[in-house]
Amino acid sequence: MTEWFESIKWDGEALVLLDQTRLPHEECWVRCATVDEVAGAISEMKVRGAPAIGLAAAAGMALAAKEAVRSGRELEAALEQACATLARTRPTAVNLFWALDRARETARSAPSAEEAVVRLSRLVDVLLEEQRESDRAIGDYGAALLPDGARVLTHCNTGALATGAYGTALGVVRRAHELGKLALVYVDESRPRLQGARLTAWELLRAGVPFRLVVDAAAASLIARGLVDAVIVGADRIAANGDVANKIGTLGLAVAARHFGVPFYVAAPLSTFDPGTPDGASIRIEERNAEEVLLVGQERVAPEGTVVLNPAFDVTPAELVTAIITDVGVVASPVKEHIDALLGELARREGGRLGAVQGAGILPR
Amino acid sequence: MTEWFESIKWDGEALVLLDQTRLPHEECWVRCATVDEVAGAISEMKVRGAPAIGLAAAAGMALAAKEAVRSGRELEAALEQACATLARTRPTAVNLFWALDRARETARSAPSAEEAVVRLSRLVDVLLEEQRESDRAIGDYGAALLPDGARVLTHCNTGALATGAYGTALGVVRRAHELGKLALVYVDESRPRLQGARLTAWELLRAGVPFRLVVDAAAASLIARGLVDAVIVGADRIAANGDVANKIGTLGLAVAARHFGVPFYVAAPLSTFDPGTPDGASIRIEERNAEEVLLVGQERVAPEGTVVLNPAFDVTPAELVTAIITDVGVVASPVKEHIDALLGELARREGGRLGAVQGAGILPR
Repeated sequence: MTEWFESIKWDGEALVLLDQTRLPHEECWVRCATVDEVAGAISEMKVRGAPAIGLAAAAGMALAAKEAVRSGRELEAALEQACATLARTRPTAVNLFWALDRARETARSAPSAEEAVVRLSRLVDVLLEEQRESDRAIGDYGAALLPDGARVLTHCNTGALATGAYGTALGVVRRAHELGKLALVYVDESRPRLQGARLTAWELLRAGVPFRLVVDAAAASLIARGLVDAVIVGADRIAANGDVANKIGTLGLAVAARHFGVPFYVAAPLSTFDPGTPDGASIRIEERNAEEVLLVGQERVAPEGTVVLNPAFDVTPAELVTAIITDVGVVASPVKEHIDALLGELARREGGRLGAVQGAGILPR
Repeated sequence: MTEWFESIKWDGEALVLLDQTRLPHEECWVRCATVDEVAGAISEMKVRGAPAIGLAAAAGMALAAKEAVRSGRELEAALEQACATLARTRPTAVNLFWALDRARETARSAPSAEEAVVRLSRLVDVLLEEQRESDRAIGDYGAALLPDGARVLTHCNTGALATGAYGTALGVVRRAHELGKLALVYVDESRPRLQGARLTAWELLRAGVPFRLVVDAAAASLIARGLVDAVIVGADRIAANGDVANKIGTLGLAVAARHFGVPFYVAAPLSTFDPGTPDGASIRIEERNAEEVLLVGQERVAPEGTVVLNPAFDVTPAELVTAIITDVGVVASPVKEHIDALLGELARREGGRLGAVQGAGILPR
C-alpha cells in the first residue's frame, strides 16, 4: 500500500501545500513560511479537510515559535497569539484545536525556547506520520465492512488532499479498490466548493478507481434505485454523544440511507472526536461567504440582489450513523457509552499510541 | 391577482419565448416560427417547466399545420411527423404528451385542413388561458394550507417561467406572499441547470418576495433545524398511484421532510396526472448530457476524463407526499383510489372544466 501523492510537505522552514483552490486545472504549490501565511491558506481553503487543517495548524505553531526565537520575542506570548490567529480560521473542524493543543503542550514541555522550536518542528513530522498510520488503519477497518463488488457513495473530499496522507472515507474506498472489492464510487460534486468534482474526481482518476460524478441532489435517487451498497463520509467533529458535523449535505445522505436501508458510515481518526462537545447542537457551524454560492469560478449563477445562506457543515445525529470507522476500530452504534469506552481505553494507553481497541460497541476484527 | 409577467406569447404566426437559458443575465426573446424551432427550444431548455413545455408543444403543432396547408402537404401526415419530433424532446414531463393529444384531437375534429389550422391556433390561446386559471386555483388551494408566517422551501423553478402563467409551487408561494402569510422562502439552487438560482431567484426578486438561496445539499439541514414549515415542489408526471416524477433532488427533500416531520406538498395541474402510468417505476427518467454537470457557463468544474451520471428527474413515492395541490382541490394522502376518484369525477364533467371537486381524499375547502 503506497501513498497516492503528498499534498502537504514540511521541511522545517516552511509548510509547502498543493493549492486545493487551483485543482484540478493547475497543480500549484504554495510555500507558507509564516503563521499568517498558514492561517491565510486555511481560511482560503488552499489546504482543507479536517486532518490536513490540523497538520497545517501545527506547522503554523512551529513557524511562529521559530520567528519568536529569531526576533527575540517571548515564546509563550508569540504562541498564544499564533494560536488565536489559527483558531479563528475555521471554527468547525476539531482537529484544528486538537493540533493547537498538542503544539502548546509540546512547547510547554521544552526546557528552552530553542528546544521548543526543535520539538514543534518534529511534532509536524510526527503528526504527518501518525496521520499515515491512522489513515491506513481506517482504510483497513473500513474496507473490511464492505461487501464484494461494493458500490459506494461518498461526499466532498476525504482523500489524500484532506488528510495529507492516505484519506479517511476515500482511504476506505481506495483500500477496497486495492483489495478488488470495489465496483464503483459515486462522487457527489459537493457544492458550493465542488470538492467532489474538483478534488475527489482528480484523486480517483490518478488512482484508476472507477467513479461517476453526480450532482448532490442525485444522491437520494441513486440510493433509492438500489445502486448504492454503502454511504461513506468523513467528519469534521464528532461530539461526545456521536453526533457528526461534516460537509453540508451529509445529513441528507444519512437520512436517505436510513430511509432506504443502506449503511451509513463515518470514517474519522480519533483526533476528530471531541469529548468536550456534548452533542451536535453545541457544535458551531461555520457560515461562509455568499460568493461561494453565487460564483462558480468567474461565472455568476444568480441575479444581483440575491441573498444567500451558506452553512459549510451540517450535523448528523448519531442515531443515523451505522458505524464510525476509526483508526483503532469500528464503533458500531456510536452512542455515548461506546465512545466513552473507546476514548477511555485510549487515554489509559502510554502515549496514546494507536492499535486495535476491543470493548463495548467495538466491532471485532 | 395579476401575472408577474408573460414568458410565453403566441401571436398565431410564431411562439415567442423568454429564453430561459440566458436568464438572469439577459432577457432575450426567441421567436419560433416552425415546429423544428419549437422542438429545438424545448430540447435546449429555452422553454422548460412541465406546463410550459406542453404549451410550446401545442404551438408547435399549430405551426406544423399552418406549414402543411401553406405547402399543400397532407395534414395528418404532417401532424404525425410534428408529433414525433416534439415527443422526442423531453421524455419525462407528461404535459407534453397531454398537449400533443389535445392538439391531435383538435385537428381531427376539424372539417377541413384550413379549419384545423384555425382551431389549433385557438387551442394555444385556450391552453394559455386554462393555465392561468389552473395556476390561480393551485395558488389559492396551496396558500390555504400554509400557516401564518410560513417559511417554505422550494426546489427548481415552478413559477411564471415554468407554466407561462402564474406558477404552480411558486404560485402557492406568491399567493401566500400576497395574503401576508409568507415569512421567507428557501430556494434550492437546483444543480445542474441552476433553475433555482437563475430563474426562481429572478422571479422572486421581481415580485419582492423575501428569499434565501441555498445549495441543494443544505436543504436537509434547514429542515432539521426547524427553519422550514413546508416543502413545496412541482411535478413533471404523477403516476396513477400518486408517485411523483420531478426535478432531481425532489426525492431527497421528501425523505428529509418525512424524517423531520415537515409537510411535503406537490403542486401540479391535472394535466400532470398520467393515469396511463401505473407507478413511478414505469416513468422514463431523462438522462441529460454530462456537460450540464461538468460546465457551469464556461467554467469547467471537474478534470478531463470524469464520467458523469446526470438523471434530470427522480421519483418520489406517493407515501412520502403529504398532499398534492391540484387545480381542482387538494388530494390528501395521494393514493390510487383518491386519484382515481378525482380523475373520474372530472371525466364526467362537460368539457372537463375546472372547479372544485369534492370526494374521497379531497380536503374540504
